[in-house]
Amino acid sequence: MNEDPHLTFDINTPGLSTGHLVVPAGNDFETLAIPVVSLNKGDGPRILITGANHGNELEGPLVARRLMAWLPEAQTCGRIVIVPVLNPPAVRGSSRNTPIDGLNLNRTFPGRPDGSISERISDALCRVLVTEADIVFDLHSMGPPFISVPMVITHPISDPDLMAKTLRLGQSMKMPITLLWEHNETAGMFDSWVHGQGKIFICTEFGGGVLTLEDLNIYEAGVRNGLINLGVIDGKPEVPPYRQQKACQTLETLLVDKVASPLPGIFEPACSVLQIVQQGDIIGKVHPVDSVSSESLIIRSPSEGTICTIRTGSFVAEDQDLAIIARPVAT
Amino acid sequence: MNEDPHLTFDINTPGLSTGHLVVPAGNDFETLAIPVVSLNKGDGPRILITGANHGNELEGPLVARRLMAWLPEAQTCGRIVIVPVLNPPAVRGSSRNTPIDGLNLNRTFPGRPDGSISERISDALCRVLVTEADIVFDLHSMGPPFISVPMVITHPISDPDLMAKTLRLGQSMKMPITLLWEHNETAGMFDSWVHGQGKIFICTEFGGGVLTLEDLNIYEAGVRNGLINLGVIDGKPEVPPYRQQKACQTLETLLVDKVASPLPGIFEPACSVLQIVQQGDIIGKVHPVDSVSSESLIIRSPSEGTICTIRTGSFVAEDQDLAIIARPVAT
Repeated sequence: MNEDPHLTFDINTPGLSTGHLVVPAGNDFETLAIPVVSLNKGDGPRILITGANHGNELEGPLVARRLMAWLPEAQTCGRIVIVPVLNPPAVRGSSRNTPIDGLNLNRTFPGRPDGSISERISDALCRVLVTEADIVFDLHSMGPPFISVPMVITHPISDPDLMAKTLRLGQSMKMPITLLWEHNETAGMFDSWVHGQGKIFICTEFGGGVLTLEDLNIYEAGVRNGLINLGVIDGKPEVPPYRQQKACQTLETLLVDKVASPLPGIFEPACSVLQIVQQGDIIGKVHPVDSVSSESLIIRSPSEGTICTIRTGSFVAEDQDLAIIARPVAT
Repeated sequence: MNEDPHLTFDINTPGLSTGHLVVPAGNDFETLAIPVVSLNKGDGPRILITGANHGNELEGPLVARRLMAWLPEAQTCGRIVIVPVLNPPAVRGSSRNTPIDGLNLNRTFPGRPDGSISERISDALCRVLVTEADIVFDLHSMGPPFISVPMVITHPISDPDLMAKTLRLGQSMKMPITLLWEHNETAGMFDSWVHGQGKIFICTEFGGGVLTLEDLNIYEAGVRNGLINLGVIDGKPEVPPYRQQKACQTLETLLVDKVASPLPGIFEPACSVLQIVQQGDIIGKVHPVDSVSSESLIIRSPSEGTICTIRTGSFVAEDQDLAIIARPVAT
C-alpha cells in the first residue's frame, strides 16, 4: 500500500517505447496498469495526449490509435506521451463515471494518493505525467446522449497570456468550432488544474451519439494540425469537411445561453447541430413518463446563436442540459 | 401486499380514455402506476401496443405519442390499448435493464406476482392487458450501442399457422426488413409467452445510436400500415424511404451468421447497415484496452449477407454481438 505511482519504462528512451502507468492498489481496487506510449525525438515541446477520461467517450482512444500509426515516422522533435485509455475501469463499464467509486474522474483532479480509484488515477497522472509535460491534449467527446459539432473548448482562464496561447493553439487545430465556455462547475477538472500550473491545456469535445468516420477524420486532422502548430511534425494543416462545410468559427457560450430541462421526461429534439436559432425558437419537447394525459413541454431557445450540441432522444432528468447554444465572441 | 394488479379505469369505455396499470408494491419497490391509453371503437380486433420494455429504447414511446395524436379520429373499429412506457424505472435510469432489480424485463415473462419489480410488471401486463388482447405490438429499438435498419423481427414459431399469420402482419407493415431470427436465448421473452397463448406478437427493432426523424417516420408509418392491414383504420399503406431506398425484404439470420467479439475491447465498425458483405469481409476491429503494444483484432463476416445491425464505436465484452447479418429466406 506504500507503493508510489510510477511508470514501468523510461519515457525518455529515444524513439518509440511502451509500458504502463502504475496506479497503486487501494481499499477499493487492486493495482491498475494504464497503457502508455512515448515517442521521444529529443529537444522540443513535451506533449501529453490522453483519451477516455470518461469511459463512454471512445473517439479519443481511436484517434490515439491512429496517431500511433504515423507519428513514429512523422515526428521531428520533442516528446509526445500518449495515454489512449486513461480510465480503463470506466471503459470496461461503458460508463461516463468510474463504476468502482461512482466518481467522475474529471472532477477529482489533482486527486489523492490515499483516495478512491478515480482519485488515485488523477493523482498518478498529475504527479507522474503532467509534471513531465508542457502542453496537454485531453481528447473527450460528448458521449452517447448528445450530438456535437467537433470543437476545441476552453473555460475562461484568468491569466490573459495563458488564455491567448490556449486560444491560439486551439484555433490552429482548425476544428469547426473553437468554443469559450462559461461554466460554473469547474472544481476538480483536469483543465483547471493544468491551467493552474501555467501549462496549456486543450480539451476537444466531439461527436456523441454514434461514432462516425467523418468525426474520426476531423478529430485526427485537428490533433495533427495542433502538432504542426507546435512544430513537432512537418506538414500543412488539413480541414476535412464537417456536414459539407469547412468553416472554422470561434464562439462563446454564456451562462444565459444554458438550456436545461425544467422537468424529467423523454427529450425529442427539434433542431440539429450547426443550425442557427433565434431567441424563442423551438429546440425540442420533453414528454412526461408518468402520464399520458398531461401535455408535453416545448423547449425554446433562450438566445440567438448556433446549436453546437443537442441532446438526442433520451431520458433527461430535471435540470440536465439539452443543448449548447453559442454566439460570436464579444469584442 | 395482497393487492392484485389492476387498471384505474375501464378500457371498454367508448372512445378515448386514460389511466394507469397499477403494479402492486413488493419488497423492493413501492406501488408503480404505468400510464395507459385506451381507444375503443367497439367490435373488431383487440390490439395492445407497448413501448419502452427496455429503458434506453425510446423510439417506442415517441411513436406511441404520435399515434395518440391521430388515432382517436382515424380509428374505425376495434380496441387499441397503448402503454407508451412499460418500464418507467428503466426509462428514468436510461438503462436497458430495470435498475431496481437489475433484470431484463424481456426475460421475466410471464412474471410472478410475488417477484421483484420487473417480474411484477410482466405479471401485471400479462394478467391485466395481454388477456384482453388478440394482437400485441411491442415497440423496441436496438438501443444506443447499435445502428439498425428498421425491422419487424420474429423468432421461428412452432405453430405453422401462427408463424404464417405473424409473418403476413409483419410484412404488411412494409418496413425495410422483416427478419426471421434464429436465436437461442428466448426464455422469459414477451414474444415467446404471447405466442404460447396462440396470439400474434409483432416485435419491431429500430434505430439505436441516435434517434432520428427518418426512423420515427418509418416507425409511425409501419405501425399505421399494420393497423390498416388489421382493418381498424382506413387508408393506403405508406413506405417512407430509408437511406434513399424503399425496398422491403424478408430475410433470415441463422446461428451460423452470428458475429460476436472473441475478446473484450473497443469496437471500431468498418461497415454500415444495408451493406452486402461476402464471407470473410472486414466488419470492424476490436482494440484492446489493456495494452498499446498488442495488435487490434480484425473481425470478419462469417457468411454472405446484408448488414441489418452493426455495433457502433463502443466497448464490447467477450462474446457480445457485433452485428446481425441476414440472408434470403431458404425456400
